[in-house]
Amino acid sequence: MKILAIDPGTRFAGYAVMQKKGRSIQLLDHGLLKIKTTNGWTHRVGTYYDFFLKKIQDHKVEDLCFETPFLYRNPSTFMKLGYIRGINYLLAHQFNLNLHEYSPSEVKQATCLKGNASKQQVACAVYKYFPTLERSLKDDITDAISVGLCRLVANRLYNKPS
Amino acid sequence: MKILAIDPGTRFAGYAVMQKKGRSIQLLDHGLLKIKTTNGWTHRVGTYYDFFLKKIQDHKVEDLCFETPFLYRNPSTFMKLGYIRGINYLLAHQFNLNLHEYSPSEVKQATCLKGNASKQQVACAVYKYFPTLERSLKDDITDAISVGLCRLVANRLYNKPS
Repeated sequence: MKILAIDPGTRFAGYAVMQKKGRSIQLLDHGLLKIKTTNGWTHRVGTYYDFFLKKIQDHKVEDLCFETPFLYRNPSTFMKLGYIRGINYLLAHQFNLNLHEYSPSEVKQATCLKGNASKQQVACAVYKYFPTLERSLKDDITDAISVGLCRLVANRLYNKPS
Repeated sequence: MKILAIDPGTRFAGYAVMQKKGRSIQLLDHGLLKIKTTNGWTHRVGTYYDFFLKKIQDHKVEDLCFETPFLYRNPSTFMKLGYIRGINYLLAHQFNLNLHEYSPSEVKQATCLKGNASKQQVACAVYKYFPTLERSLKDDITDAISVGLCRLVANRLYNKPS
C-alpha cells in the first residue's frame, strides 16, 4: 500500500509518500510545498492542487491521509484551511484514493503514545522510526510523516520491525 | 462577457450563466445542483467540481462570481463551505477565469438597493429584471441570478435597458 500523507496548510504543506511492504515502512519521498502568499487564492489553491496531483501520479498513490485542522480562534484561518481540505477531497475523488483524516491528537497518540505531545516530541518519534533521515526537517514535514505513520502503523510505532 | 454566477452550498448550489451584450443582460442557463448528503465528502466535492467544470466548458464562461459565505455560528458549516469555495478557486485557476466574490449584503444592495433585503425581495428584483422567468424558482437559483446581476449591472439594476 502506497500512501500520500499531508500536513495541510495555506502557506506550507508538508508531505510524505510512504509504502508498507510486509512489516516494514519505507519513506519514498518527503518535502515541503511552499505556497506564495503574495498570489491570490485561485493561484494558491491551484498550486496546491497541481503539486499533489503530480505526486499522486508520479508515485501511483492509492491512499491519501491528512491531519484534520482543529478549530482556530480565527474563523478566517479555519475557512482557508477548508479550501485546502476541499482540494484534498477532490484529489481523492479524481484518483479514487482511500481517504483518512486524523485529528492532531490522534496522530500524536499514535506516534508518541501521548495525545498532547509537542511538535519536538513528534519529530523525535519520526527520527526514531527513520534513523537515517536528515535532522532539522521543518515541523510541517515531520508532522506529515507522523500522519503517514499514524495511518500505517498506528499504535504499533514502537514495535518497529528490525 | 459570459459569466457563471453561483450561490454555493454543500447541499444545494444555485447557478446562472449570464451574458452582457451591449446594454442588455441575457440569462442563458440557470438551475440547481443537488448534492446528495448521503455520500461522503470526496463524492460531494467531486460532484460539485464536475458539474461546474462542465458548465464552464459548455458555455465557454470567462468570469466566475459567487456569494462569499458569511460566518455561521456553527464553525463546522463554515468549514464545509470552505471546501466548496476552494473548488471555485481551483476552477477559476484552471480555466483562467476572472473571479469576483460578493458578500450577501453587497448582492442585496446591488439588486434591491437594500443591504438587508429578504430572500423574497431578492427574488422579486430578479423576476422584475427577467419578467419571462418562471416563478417559484428555489431561493438558491434566484440568489445565484442576483449574484450575476450584482456582477453585471451592480447598482444600475433598476435602469434596466428596454
